[in-house]
Amino acid sequence: MNLILLEPGDFLDSGLAGEPGSPVITTLRGRRFQHITEVHRADVGDTLKVGLLDGQMGEGEVVEHREGQITLRVSLHRAPPPPLPLTLILALPRPKMLKRTIQHATALGVKQLYLINAYRVEKSYWQSPWLSEEKLREQCVLGLEQAVDTAMPKIELRKRFKPFVEDELPDIAAGSRKLVAHPVTDTPCPVDIPDQTTLAVGPEGGFIPYEVEKLQEAGFESVHLGPRILRVETALPVLLARLFPGR
Amino acid sequence: MNLILLEPGDFLDSGLAGEPGSPVITTLRGRRFQHITEVHRADVGDTLKVGLLDGQMGEGEVVEHREGQITLRVSLHRAPPPPLPLTLILALPRPKMLKRTIQHATALGVKQLYLINAYRVEKSYWQSPWLSEEKLREQCVLGLEQAVDTAMPKIELRKRFKPFVEDELPDIAAGSRKLVAHPVTDTPCPVDIPDQTTLAVGPEGGFIPYEVEKLQEAGFESVHLGPRILRVETALPVLLARLFPGR
Repeated sequence: MNLILLEPGDFLDSGLAGEPGSPVITTLRGRRFQHITEVHRADVGDTLKVGLLDGQMGEGEVVEHREGQITLRVSLHRAPPPPLPLTLILALPRPKMLKRTIQHATALGVKQLYLINAYRVEKSYWQSPWLSEEKLREQCVLGLEQAVDTAMPKIELRKRFKPFVEDELPDIAAGSRKLVAHPVTDTPCPVDIPDQTTLAVGPEGGFIPYEVEKLQEAGFESVHLGPRILRVETALPVLLARLFPGR
Repeated sequence: MNLILLEPGDFLDSGLAGEPGSPVITTLRGRRFQHITEVHRADVGDTLKVGLLDGQMGEGEVVEHREGQITLRVSLHRAPPPPLPLTLILALPRPKMLKRTIQHATALGVKQLYLINAYRVEKSYWQSPWLSEEKLREQCVLGLEQAVDTAMPKIELRKRFKPFVEDELPDIAAGSRKLVAHPVTDTPCPVDIPDQTTLAVGPEGGFIPYEVEKLQEAGFESVHLGPRILRVETALPVLLARLFPGR
C-alpha cells in the first residue's frame, strides 16, 4: 500500500466541498487503519501519500490516532499518472492467476480491460468467485495502492468469443493500432509506439489458429516477444514495457 | 512444459555418443511421463519439443508408450536462445514470491543471479526451505520448460550486503553497464542497450539510502521505471523488456 486510497464515502462527515486543494478531514478504520499503523507505523504528525478514487492525489497528515481508527487531514493537489493509451483484450486466465493478473494489469496502468472467452479457456474458469464485480474491484484497489494511482480500471466480461470479435471489437478498436500477441509469427512486438492501442493476449497455450484468423480479419497484427515463451503474467508486463516504456 | 527438458542421466542406457545430431533413445517416467501423456496427450508417432539441459534443443518422437513410461527417439540439432547479457543482483524476495521470481527470471533468460541481503529483507526469509539448492533448481527447471530454453541459471546466495558490494561486486560487474532500479531518481531506465549489464533490484520498499549510496560508490547508476511503483515480480519483466527487448 504505497498509496492510501480514499473513496468519496470516506468524506461523508466532512464533505469534499470548499476550494480545490483545501484540506479535508477523514477517519479511517479496518484494513487501511491496520496498514497505516502496522506497516507504515505512522502516528500523529506523520504524512502519508493519499489519493481519491478516480480523483487527485496528495498527502494525508495524521491528526488523531485512537483505538481502531486514525484521522487524516487530507490535501489533494496532484493528478494521478496518465493512463496507458490501451485497451487490453485478455483471454480469461485460470482462477489462480486471475487475481494476480488483475493486480498486475492495474499496477501497470491498464484502464480498459475485456476478459474474453477463447477455445483454450476452460469452461470452469467462468465459475470463479473471483470474477464477481466486488472481487475484481478489490484486486484493482490493491493494484492502485501498489502503483500509486487513483483511476479505477473498467473491466468487462465477454463469455463468447465470436460475437465479441465480430460485433463488438470493431467499435472498441476503431482508430487504434491493433496487435495480438502470438508466439508463432515473424513480426516482433514494436517498441515505444505513440498510438492508442488495442492489444489481444491469448490464454495459456495461445489462441487457436481460427481465433488468430478472426482477429486478423478484424485488423489485428500478430506480434511476438522474442525467442522465449512466457506465461501470461510475465508476458503482460513485457508487452506493456515494450509498447509504452516509462509510461 | 513447452519443452521436455532432458538430462544427461536420461541417456544412461543408450548413451549420448555418436554423430552430433544423430538420434538417441530415452525412456521417461514420473513428472515428465505424466505431463506428456496427460497434458500433451501424446502417443506413438507424435513429436514433442525437447532439449538437453545445458545443451541443444530438438525433437523427440514417441516410439513406445507403456504403463508409467514413455520412450522418445531424440534428435538434438538447434541451439537454445542466447542468454541475456545480464547479471541480476536481487534482494531476496519473501518466500511466497521467491518461487515465482526464480521461475520468471529463468523464463526471461536470466543466467547469472545473486540473491543478496538488504536492510528491508526480513531475517526470516533466509530460513525459507525454497532456498535449498534442490528447490531453486526445481524452479529453474520449470522456468526453462516454460520458456523453451536449456541453459540452467547459476544462482548464488549472499547473506551480507556490505562485504558483497564492497569486496565481490566490483569483480562481478567489471566492464559491464551498472544499473540499480530505484523509484526515487530522475533517470529513466534505458531502452534496448547493447552492453553487458549488471542490474540490482531492491526488496519490497526498496533499497535504503545507505544501500543505494554503496551501490553508487560501486559505479551503479539509479534508474526508474516510470510514474508507477511496481512489485518486484512485475518490475523484473518490465526492466528486462526495456533493457533487452526481444532478446
